Amino acid sequence: MNKEEAIKEGLKLAGESRNAIVGSIGEDAYPNQKCMFNMESEGLKTIWFGTNTSSKRVAQFRKNPKASVYFVDFDGFRGLMLVGDMEVLEDLESKKRLWREGYEMYYPQGVTDPDYCVLRFTAKSGNFYHGLENVSFEIE
Amino acid sequence: MNKEEAIKEGLKLAGESRNAIVGSIGEDAYPNQKCMFNMESEGLKTIWFGTNTSSKRVAQFRKNPKASVYFVDFDGFRGLMLVGDMEVLEDLESKKRLWREGYEMYYPQGVTDPDYCVLRFTAKSGNFYHGLENVSFEIE
Repeated sequence: MNKEEAIKEGLKLAGESRNAIVGSIGEDAYPNQKCMFNMESEGLKTIWFGTNTSSKRVAQFRKNPKASVYFVDFDGFRGLMLVGDMEVLEDLESKKRLWREGYEMYYPQGVTDPDYCVLRFTAKSGNFYHGLENVSFEIE
Repeated sequence: MNKEEAIKEGLKLAGESRNAIVGSIGEDAYPNQKCMFNMESEGLKTIWFGTNTSSKRVAQFRKNPKASVYFVDFDGFRGLMLVGDMEVLEDLESKKRLWREGYEMYYPQGVTDPDYCVLRFTAKSGNFYHGLENVSFEIE
């Protein structure tokens, strides 16, 4: 598996994944992880998530934007780790972009609910594995 | 869900999980993640993994033992994050403990293969979620 194949297979896995495991750095400098819905993405470079502005993860990323995003297919022995930075966005355009029908259940005030915000992850590098093979690559 | 229920449900999820996603801190201080086999555990306090001594994860944990271990059931909307420290063990007793039939495929020199080692994770705290509920707890 060369880099081009790893990126292609990584894109395929990300596209198939309903969930991503988001890695952050906690206040005590320990790594943290949380499962989030894989909402929208642009290639492997940009991945978007919607979440609560009051959540622990948002507080962590405001203090330290360093992040990772992990997609995994346990049965197929495939995994993609992306490493990069997470931004917390509260502008209306970003919030509208990620808004989905039924979100009023979580954010009663609708798309302008101050407790609804958007996380935008920008990848710097990645690693894809399949079985015993794994390939690292930069993301331009 | 109270703390006792969260711990009980977390133990159940960990027991059912063939895999864990292990979080570490990379050299550049970014969070990293890797899927590993959930080999052996003692409650939620201690979790054991077998891996290559030459691997990137081992180098990271030797420099910075801060770790997290994540168990997830995507379909059931359940997840358990454990936060704690990872030790790299190369003593024969630990290596024998984790050795499994067929490992010669990965470690041709057998249980004493210098490229085979053991990771022992010791948890300090945890967080279990199920649906929209999530509960944090200390681990004694």
